[in-house]
Parts: sequence; C-alpha cells; structure tokens
Amino acid sequence: MIQGVKTLKRPFVFINSAMSADGKISSVERTQVRISGKADLARVDALRARSDAVMVGAGTVLADDPGLRIKSEDFRRERLEKGLSENPLRIVADSRARTPATAKILGEGCLLAVAESAPQERLDCLVQRCEIIVCGRESVDLNELFARLAQRGVERIMVEGGATLNWSLINLGLVDEIYVYVGATIIGGERAPTLVDGEGFRKNFPRLMLSSVQQLDEGVLLKWTPTVPTSSDKRP
Amino acid sequence: MIQGVKTLKRPFVFINSAMSADGKISSVERTQVRISGKADLARVDALRARSDAVMVGAGTVLADDPGLRIKSEDFRRERLEKGLSENPLRIVADSRARTPATAKILGEGCLLAVAESAPQERLDCLVQRCEIIVCGRESVDLNELFARLAQRGVERIMVEGGATLNWSLINLGLVDEIYVYVGATIIGGERAPTLVDGEGFRKNFPRLMLSSVQQLDEGVLLKWTPTVPTSSDKRP
Repeated sequence: MIQGVKTLKRPFVFINSAMSADGKISSVERTQVRISGKADLARVDALRARSDAVMVGAGTVLADDPGLRIKSEDFRRERLEKGLSENPLRIVADSRARTPATAKILGEGCLLAVAESAPQERLDCLVQRCEIIVCGRESVDLNELFARLAQRGVERIMVEGGATLNWSLINLGLVDEIYVYVGATIIGGERAPTLVDGEGFRKNFPRLMLSSVQQLDEGVLLKWTPTVPTSSDKRP
Repeated sequence: MIQGVKTLKRPFVFINSAMSADGKISSVERTQVRISGKADLARVDALRARSDAVMVGAGTVLADDPGLRIKSEDFRRERLEKGLSENPLRIVADSRARTPATAKILGEGCLLAVAESAPQERLDCLVQRCEIIVCGRESVDLNELFARLAQRGVERIMVEGGATLNWSLINLGLVDEIYVYVGATIIGGERAPTLVDGEGFRKNFPRLMLSSVQQLDEGVLLKWTPTVPTSSDKRP
C-alpha cells in the first residue's frame, strides 16, 4: 500500500479569529465590528510575527481589505535581526482571482493561490503585484498548496479568516490549532458570517480539546486543538 | 411626562444555551448535536429548577420537541416541598400557533403565547392541551407578555432558545443575563442556527460584561451580562 501514497509534509496551520459572544466574525452587512481590544490586538500581532506566513480567503480581502503586516516596529526589527523577511509571507486563497488590484495585501511578499479555472485577464492584472501559484482545478487544492509551501520552507501558517476558508481547512482536517477570542458583544443575524461557515458538518462533528482559557480585555481567549478522529468516527 | 408611561414590572429574564466553538446551536439540518456533557446538563437542570418559567420559541419546539421538565427527582421534590409546582411553567412564544398538538412541551403547566393573527383552527386544536395567551397583532408582544407574566407572579424566566427568540429578546433589551456553554466541537455551516440569529444588528452592537468563566466538561461556561447602553449609543 506504499505505492501512490503521498506523505508530503505540511506546515503547522492554526486559525486565529475574534468572534462575538454569539459566534459572528462580522455583521450581516459584512462590515468590520470591533470585537477585541488592545491586548488582543497585540497578541495577534505577536502571533503574526512568529509565523512564516499569514493566510486569508478572498472573501476577507474583498470585505475587509486587510494589510496583514506586522504592526509593532519591534517585532519587525526582531525578524530582520533573525534574517527573516520583515513581515511573514501573505497568502490569499483565491480560486477565481477575485482579489482587487488595489488590495492592501498585494505587493512584495504576497502570494496568490488560484485555481486553473481563474480567468486569465484577472491573472494578467494581478501578476505585477504578487506571486501567483496555480493549484487545483475549480478551487484551490489546499493540500497541494501546503505541500508546496512546506517545500519552500514555510513551517508555520496563521490563518486569519474568513468563515469559508476556515470551513475548507477544518473540513479537510488541515488545522492544528484554533485561537478564538470571544468578545463582549452580540452581533446577531441569520446571515452574518460566523467562525466556520461553508456547507457545515451533518454528522461526525469534529471534536476539539480545550487547551487554554484566558480572560483578555473584556472577553475571553479560547485555544482549541482538534482531536484526531478515532477510526470508529472517521468522517465518510 | 408621567402620563402614558407604562412602568410595568417584568420578570428577570436569562438565556441559557449551548453552542459549538463556532457559535452554532445545531447543524444545517437543524438536528440536535451533543454540545455539552453531563456536568453541563446537570447545571441546566438546576437552573430550570430555580426558575418560575422556562421559555422557548416555536422553531425550537418544531426542531427539537423538548419536554422542558426538570429531570432530577430531587429538584422536583424540593419544589413541591416549597409549595411550588413540580416543574416551572413552560412557555412557547408561538406567534402563528405552529406548535404541533403532539408536542412534548404541551400539557398541564404549558402556556402558549400567540399573536392575534394566529389561525383560529390552530388555537381550537391546541386549547385542550395548554393555556393560550393572545398578545400582539402579527407577532407576540414580548413586553406585554412579560408584564402579564409578572402580574401572575412569574419573577424569573429561563429562555432555552432558539436563535430567533434570543434575537427578539436581545433586540428589545429584555435580557438580564446570558449563560453560554461553549462546547468542544465544530458544527460549521452558513445556514446552521447560531446563538442569536434574526435580522442582526447593523450598528450600536450591544455590549456585554463577562461575569464569569468556568471550565466544565470539555468546554467552558461563559456568563455574560448585557450592559445598559449609555444615552450616546442608544439604538435607534
């Protein structure tokens, strides 16, 4: 059974997200909501600084236009002193290459992962502003992407949303840790994005282990570790 | 300014709910998911035993068909010894009287709150199995319902879901406390019900105060207290 089995190493992948007390990461209008406070933002910046790459889905780029650079000058200097790039690699999982050419995430150190089906005119437009990796037919093959990232030395990836990318990664069993900051607010809304959207599980819901609980600002930071499913409850 | 101002007392109202680590209270198929464990279920039973009434929305009755009685024989006996009913009053907020005549929640000690627009044939069918209160035109007027409940001595109401009733109550500022058990599982799904659904807030998101954090079973119990909005950020 060894033939054909690909045992490609993949990076350590963790999700970091803030959600409201009712599990929302933004409002029904998809506008950013202040969920966490100063201490949590500093924690997120430190996590970024200790990662080789940060990653978001195209929906997050379209909704929030995040820059995803390290805010602290000290952290950036420390990275440079260690011989690292000032900021971690910025990756967008963007099957259809929908990232706008003006997106803040673009520029030196940005990698766009697209599918084979991405429109060529979009790629022509974006190729000046980032590196483009094609993997997967209709949507980005995340297993292949991670294998290729591992090959180029990326060992630690911080995923910063959104709900659809989180779903894809968890559904594929590609997440090693989840940090969730639960903020002291209610957003509500049947259509507001949550920590994990997508199709959703219908059975064999993945179990987590609660690794730590920490009160921070006005909310609480939970750290979860997905547990490996036993053979009896393996997903179909 | 005293004329016309109704200062009807209302009961203390708290929400108790379990949600997955990603904020879902059930799956996209609306089937019940085991989110909490034994210790949490015992806690919920004790909360019920200390309440004058438990309340759910019609959606929860249709999806889960909960009995909402106290499970512990000791708790039931203690209530009887205090001169209380064996179980708290069971209330369904059911504007259109959609509760099936076979629902487990019905029977002695069940109160159905319906709107004036509820179909008469539904009421005729249900009136043998519960008390019916009509308040509100198209949907149940929760302020009026609570005022009438206060008048008959109901001082403490435990709301056990679902997402739409939670939204209505929070949106009206009628919630005094929220217990959320965050369970060690991921449910996912854009269409899975969350702790608070409905229309959702678009601005002036209500703020909460974190009153307590307690690890329980494999998850964590958070107790939130909505803070009274200051006049400057009052909702429109």
